Amino acid sequence: MSRSPGRKPENHKISRELFVLTYGALVAQLCKDYEKDEDVNTCLDRMGYSIGIRLIDDFLARSAVKKCRSYSETADMIAQVAFKMYLGVTPSVSCNSATGNEFSLILDKNPLVDFVEELPAERASLCYCNLLCGVIRGALEMVRKCTSV
Amino acid sequence: MSRSPGRKPENHKISRELFVLTYGALVAQLCKDYEKDEDVNTCLDRMGYSIGIRLIDDFLARSAVKKCRSYSETADMIAQVAFKMYLGVTPSVSCNSATGNEFSLILDKNPLVDFVEELPAERASLCYCNLLCGVIRGALEMVRKCTSV
Repeated sequence: MSRSPGRKPENHKISRELFVLTYGALVAQLCKDYEKDEDVNTCLDRMGYSIGIRLIDDFLARSAVKKCRSYSETADMIAQVAFKMYLGVTPSVSCNSATGNEFSLILDKNPLVDFVEELPAERASLCYCNLLCGVIRGALEMVRKCTSV
Repeated sequence: MSRSPGRKPENHKISRELFVLTYGALVAQLCKDYEKDEDVNTCLDRMGYSIGIRLIDDFLARSAVKKCRSYSETADMIAQVAFKMYLGVTPSVSCNSATGNEFSLILDKNPLVDFVEELPAERASLCYCNLLCGVIRGALEMVRKCTSV
């Protein structure tokens, strides 16, 4: 009997296009629901937070990573392992503070905005991808790292 | 210089978990917005329709499929090519009418409900995955097949 123990399970992957368009529908719905951009941003962050606190289990189980020993290691882990795993891209990380506890993740290519035309002028303060900030905040909180994202 | 012309582009794939949880956030938001299940269903269908009319171009470009010659061929194409490509699963197709123009796609394993616990009793009429029906309706309309889904 032949077996293929090394075969990668493919069922964790889906097409990015469907996700990107569904995310667009979500943001559009929130823009209908809330007049102020700040409220849309808050709502996206809150949704992301709920997703993050559930996604962390999946991340820890599938990535089998060890505990990070520093903020810098955590930021690298988010960029190189988590973003790669969930969005198929790797942002670059830059440290923004002398104390080494503030980081930026810079997406040269942001898959979430693939189908997005320019945002209308009246939505200038909309943080279109704010869900991702919430996801990071929620996930980090579950591994006892309180952050503002 | 070595090249790998057969290498599959990987950047079209993302993790299913993030999509499933984001979709859950979208449905939850609509349940907050609309009291009646029917209105949530209609809204999901409408969103799906908008996604479908955009996704069809991506599908035709990436699948390079030929024109379907019958309803039955179309149903098989949706199940075996489109569902596989976008959700990583293949529903089974059953024909529901003697005239051969009515089909059911049956998902033994529906990735969209991965993290969903039982729907609350007061949401008994909610068609949780109605977005998919809208996507199919929209996509088919763009290839000049008007359907009710």
